[in-house]
Amino acid sequence: MNAPESPQKSIMLGDFVHSRTKNKLEFMYNSGIAVNNENGKIVDIENSSTSMDIAKQKLLQRLHWSEDEVEIYKCEPGQFFFPGFIDTHVHASQYPIVGLFDERSLISWLNGRVFPTEWRYEDAEVARQVYRACVKRTLSHGTTTAAYYTTIHVPATKALADICLELRQRAFIGRMCMDNNNFCPPYLCDKSSQELINKTTEVIEYINSKDPDHEIISPALAPRFALACTPSAMSELSGMYKAQHLLVPTHLAENRAEVKLVAETFPEAGSYTKVYDNYGLLTPRTVLGHSVHITEGEASLIKKRQSKVAHCPCSNSALASGMAQVRWMWDRGIDVGLGTDMSGGYSPSMLEAARQAVLVSRQLAAQLSDEAERQKVNLSVPQVLYLATRGGAKVVGLDEKIGGFERDKDWDAQLIGLNVVASSGKTEHENAVEQGDTGNVDLFPWDMSKWDDMIAKWVYNGDDRNAKKVWVKGQLVHSRL
Amino acid sequence: MNAPESPQKSIMLGDFVHSRTKNKLEFMYNSGIAVNNENGKIVDIENSSTSMDIAKQKLLQRLHWSEDEVEIYKCEPGQFFFPGFIDTHVHASQYPIVGLFDERSLISWLNGRVFPTEWRYEDAEVARQVYRACVKRTLSHGTTTAAYYTTIHVPATKALADICLELRQRAFIGRMCMDNNNFCPPYLCDKSSQELINKTTEVIEYINSKDPDHEIISPALAPRFALACTPSAMSELSGMYKAQHLLVPTHLAENRAEVKLVAETFPEAGSYTKVYDNYGLLTPRTVLGHSVHITEGEASLIKKRQSKVAHCPCSNSALASGMAQVRWMWDRGIDVGLGTDMSGGYSPSMLEAARQAVLVSRQLAAQLSDEAERQKVNLSVPQVLYLATRGGAKVVGLDEKIGGFERDKDWDAQLIGLNVVASSGKTEHENAVEQGDTGNVDLFPWDMSKWDDMIAKWVYNGDDRNAKKVWVKGQLVHSRL
Repeated sequence: MNAPESPQKSIMLGDFVHSRTKNKLEFMYNSGIAVNNENGKIVDIENSSTSMDIAKQKLLQRLHWSEDEVEIYKCEPGQFFFPGFIDTHVHASQYPIVGLFDERSLISWLNGRVFPTEWRYEDAEVARQVYRACVKRTLSHGTTTAAYYTTIHVPATKALADICLELRQRAFIGRMCMDNNNFCPPYLCDKSSQELINKTTEVIEYINSKDPDHEIISPALAPRFALACTPSAMSELSGMYKAQHLLVPTHLAENRAEVKLVAETFPEAGSYTKVYDNYGLLTPRTVLGHSVHITEGEASLIKKRQSKVAHCPCSNSALASGMAQVRWMWDRGIDVGLGTDMSGGYSPSMLEAARQAVLVSRQLAAQLSDEAERQKVNLSVPQVLYLATRGGAKVVGLDEKIGGFERDKDWDAQLIGLNVVASSGKTEHENAVEQGDTGNVDLFPWDMSKWDDMIAKWVYNGDDRNAKKVWVKGQLVHSRL
Repeated sequence: MNAPESPQKSIMLGDFVHSRTKNKLEFMYNSGIAVNNENGKIVDIENSSTSMDIAKQKLLQRLHWSEDEVEIYKCEPGQFFFPGFIDTHVHASQYPIVGLFDERSLISWLNGRVFPTEWRYEDAEVARQVYRACVKRTLSHGTTTAAYYTTIHVPATKALADICLELRQRAFIGRMCMDNNNFCPPYLCDKSSQELINKTTEVIEYINSKDPDHEIISPALAPRFALACTPSAMSELSGMYKAQHLLVPTHLAENRAEVKLVAETFPEAGSYTKVYDNYGLLTPRTVLGHSVHITEGEASLIKKRQSKVAHCPCSNSALASGMAQVRWMWDRGIDVGLGTDMSGGYSPSMLEAARQAVLVSRQLAAQLSDEAERQKVNLSVPQVLYLATRGGAKVVGLDEKIGGFERDKDWDAQLIGLNVVASSGKTEHENAVEQGDTGNVDLFPWDMSKWDDMIAKWVYNGDDRNAKKVWVKGQLVHSRL
């Protein structure tokens, strides 16, 4: 089903949930949000009314809208609105190999699985097939914004830009930058830093021509990681950053062997983070994927440069990289978002990433015997939802635009629906289980007004089936029964 | 949809996958398995034929069956047969609170969440509602055998037995035994060890009357854990074990605080495991849930008594209990199965438990710097699938009957279906994504003959949507489009 022609004005009615702070969700019951579908913005909010109908009437009156020109979306029992997810670190090109980890750690997995897969994108037709599947899939999981890496291939990268624009997923598109033939395979390596810059520029110009104001798609500068780029390429990318202030997604200290290799390659730098800093790539728009094995000194430097971190718990477990310390980074003033890191992360789902963020933090806690210390590393359900929305918005520099429900923000949102198990009428629930399209989250009668519980149930057992509708910038981009 | 009337004979055609050893899956391509639906048994196997049709003809000829009296189930592209999952540790009564962990560790979570929930089952109508939802749900995830704990309530426990028999899920039903009022809340505590034994006996007799040969449902003796039972109750349960050799599910060394409390309560025992041994409960049919924090000496004792372990990785992470060392237990000769441990485990899915078993083992590996040592703790995809099938069968004492595809075993199986992304015809795939009932596992054209990859993709991204059909003892018990 394609997104239907949207009307010019919508009113969303029901219960709204979003992050108020890192630690706290805000619940707005029986509320209404009015959306201008043309510019995609929230134009008014009626917070916590006595009924959905009263919220609607108040909005119509205040805005001088007549009901017949407005599309109404109304929550049913077990449904609520939640901000769209922001995936701060994801390799679109690796979508076909999600779950394939026969090689056991980062470097051997890159050589054995990832590079041969990325080579396929020399064929732009393969790119169109896979990228389309990837964007449809991530939209279906409620990912309204994604910071994508592609491959070195220009036509394939342009194809991803086209598809994001067509399917309307807000996206940063980073053509993978790699020109260091000491590390990169010959079939996946720009011949010189000049070629790297030229091809990167070609993609940037293409995206700028398609979406000059970066309403939906934005270009990014994506040096794969310190070993994949020559010093000269890193310096030149830094120059491009200074001129254009684009997002700079890259990888940092994912795995011990990688950290060791970087130290051997750049012995004078003193730390992995310092390598990026030395070449001018530790910027306020740099998004450092992983950052599992960073020192206190590196954390200070990241904070000083206002660089950001993308936490990728699914990947950190699947590739045996380790457990990143999110609370520790927060305590040092670093902004952190969440990334699926497909396909180091095995899942396209940000909800899965949020769930793993909780679980890994609890395994970190299990290593400590002091209860107070344990509480300092645990991530709560509200905290991981913050990472997945407002935290991510800050990381990609869009916190003025997305991540929560406020007037003048864009309407990037999901309608979440959970199963209601009626105390009588079990048959309906059983049919739903058989049909399989209502997901695994069952609300029993006594759950219905306990919002913290409903949200926790969703985070622990939810999946794409619970994302009933997804909007980006005021328009419906995904819908299921 | 209820299971249709099964015909007397079936032939399953296609590709079959099951565990050959702990480390190795066996793939049988273009094969056929003939099933006598009346006694539920596999009567013949035609392994790796040149085509499904030839496999069918060979079976019909050998068995002197005519095609028109046989129901044929045939794999489509992306489909294969796999043994049903065996959940060796699951609390049916906790199904309504999956994902609710506001209290942060075992003991406080038991008091704050679990006990108040278990109290609801005093009302047998609540039990019928929840247990029905639970059994439907776990069947839909391919769980063909479950070792269930209930609560102390007799009518509610009988209700679970009735429901498992009706919906035909092979189940061990353990009425929860707890009579120690130093630990158990007054509303959830048998008044004496005599009452505990009487009520347990009443449930056993009920199950024996409903299913005298334990074809589908079997009673179990379920001392909750060392702190919940009085020494006299444990001794008397041991006497019942000696007379009846029923399964004895219980908990062991889940969490450090619990281990400490047990040590303080039984200072003379010397170890948690020794407590059970002292009261005659460390038997060859004892299934020790968790066993996260056991010593070398305890492992030796478990091995000596031939007791079994239920590994519960979802729960061990969610409750911050720690990481159980499965490979270490295997190396010491202990049989290990897999448990969801709902709702310490947040998910009803054994596939999720298998996935978490991989992920947690990789986080264990990440703590080691020596590559050879890392390889000794990593669990592979074939290994976790062994835990979920043959390993579990051994743990519950049914390895002669279920866990793999061999002649004279019962047909407890799943038909797994993954999405095939056609190189052209993307629309079909997109429709499937929209409808949401085909799940998240996408096979691209180049995946199609790589069976290790297809299985890994299923383990990492599969869910109940991939369990298209589920059979227990030769009869179809769950089906979806």
